[in-house]
Amino acid sequence: VGSEGTLGIATEITLRIVRSPETVATQLAAFRSIDEAGEAVSAIVSAGILPAAIEMMDRLTIDAAEQAFHPGYPEGAESVVLVELDGVAVQVEEDVTAVERICRVCGAFEVRVAQDEAERALLWLGRKGAFPAMGRISPDYYVQDGVVPRTKLPAVLRRIDELSVEHGLRVGNVFHAGDGNLHPLVLYDAAKGEAERAKALAEEILAACLDAGGALTGEHGVGVDKACSMPKMFSERDLATFERLRRAFDPDGIANPGKVLPTPRLCGEVPGPYRMHPLERIGVAERF
Amino acid sequence: VGSEGTLGIATEITLRIVRSPETVATQLAAFRSIDEAGEAVSAIVSAGILPAAIEMMDRLTIDAAEQAFHPGYPEGAESVVLVELDGVAVQVEEDVTAVERICRVCGAFEVRVAQDEAERALLWLGRKGAFPAMGRISPDYYVQDGVVPRTKLPAVLRRIDELSVEHGLRVGNVFHAGDGNLHPLVLYDAAKGEAERAKALAEEILAACLDAGGALTGEHGVGVDKACSMPKMFSERDLATFERLRRAFDPDGIANPGKVLPTPRLCGEVPGPYRMHPLERIGVAERF
Repeated sequence: VGSEGTLGIATEITLRIVRSPETVATQLAAFRSIDEAGEAVSAIVSAGILPAAIEMMDRLTIDAAEQAFHPGYPEGAESVVLVELDGVAVQVEEDVTAVERICRVCGAFEVRVAQDEAERALLWLGRKGAFPAMGRISPDYYVQDGVVPRTKLPAVLRRIDELSVEHGLRVGNVFHAGDGNLHPLVLYDAAKGEAERAKALAEEILAACLDAGGALTGEHGVGVDKACSMPKMFSERDLATFERLRRAFDPDGIANPGKVLPTPRLCGEVPGPYRMHPLERIGVAERF
Repeated sequence: VGSEGTLGIATEITLRIVRSPETVATQLAAFRSIDEAGEAVSAIVSAGILPAAIEMMDRLTIDAAEQAFHPGYPEGAESVVLVELDGVAVQVEEDVTAVERICRVCGAFEVRVAQDEAERALLWLGRKGAFPAMGRISPDYYVQDGVVPRTKLPAVLRRIDELSVEHGLRVGNVFHAGDGNLHPLVLYDAAKGEAERAKALAEEILAACLDAGGALTGEHGVGVDKACSMPKMFSERDLATFERLRRAFDPDGIANPGKVLPTPRLCGEVPGPYRMHPLERIGVAERF
């Protein structure tokens, strides 16, 4: 429910099983610029089409994926968009045609639909293997998780490019475009002492997401990593309310202590008036 | 969101507009016993049919509605069930047939579908006018709002009958059967000093709902009327958690004070350890 374990634990979960879709179609569209790809994603969603997934990769990620898994992404593509449509056959067929038309209008130089399960798996292999594939082109990477309004995707991607140049580190982009959920991969070499620089760049990318009206995290949560950034997104009064809410469910401070909210131990000075975590006050949180 | 105004106020609301259904069909089924009607409701829902509404009335309510509005409910009916189906025409047609079959199997002696908008309005007039129609048969009534698992409907209705006889007051039943949401109308005459007796009977009906695995309120909320009954459904620890949650959002005690949770002023002795409302402590809540 988004509380990252701070409001309690689930002791019982009832699942609603949904029927498997009658048909699944996986489409690939290749573009000569990331801007065109971003426009296509916006246009697909604006057209009222509701794909099960819209995934986007940039040149750096495509190259890494090709080297590692040979999914056969078109040569010369600056961006590849994967669209998965599922549902009733008649509807999926209509949507496939509409997605192709929209992608062509936005500048795609190749659009194709996987013809069988093997081709479908291969198209996805490149996307799903993009993270491990980075090992082919960089000794280390730092993955960021931000989210922005879909209409702001092209602008934020341009800003990430600028930041990459400023900091002198490559950034690969592979992400859930349909949700506006970015996963910039900051490539660096720890052996060359670039770790701190990578972290600083990743933080500026997050700031760019916030500036664009986005949020600190798209899906992976705040945890410890982003706790100190919470005051960038929320006011002191917001944070005080979060703290009281947490105490309401967890008066003894035993549910995932030290996570999500900034604490003096993690962040140095933190804005009042919310209190230090009780376990931190007595030094127990040191163990976590 | 069910907080009855205790967690704050809405300053902006975004609505998702759903399309009007292609077809609406209103069906009436008449039964010679309330038990048969209850079984029919259970069977309709078990069959996977999802009506927009399933409403049920007992003899007393039917008589009052007939006197006031002449909706033409079948003579000799101990219970009338109204089923409203909406959606795609093909589906509604199928469901209308299925509902008729189920009602006949459960003992309905008459089932009909409204043939036009005027007949549909007339069928609903009796149900929607049931409350004011009570004025035809009783000077006063006290309406209760409980909810029980649908499968317990027949048993709880029998229990309400017994309680009615014990307390010497008539009870009319008109309710959202599809949700298991009961609205027993306890008929009394305040001029004859029956008000306290009516309240006591209504409270026993609520206790019967809780015994059947139901809840204190189906849709109208706790407010002041049921605040003192909260300890019947929730433990001291539950109530303490509710109190802390409320304070998290409303530390100054300004959001609908004195409602929902039991307070000494309303209920006399209340189980600890949750605290008295701050405005009550300083006597301000007297004004509410």
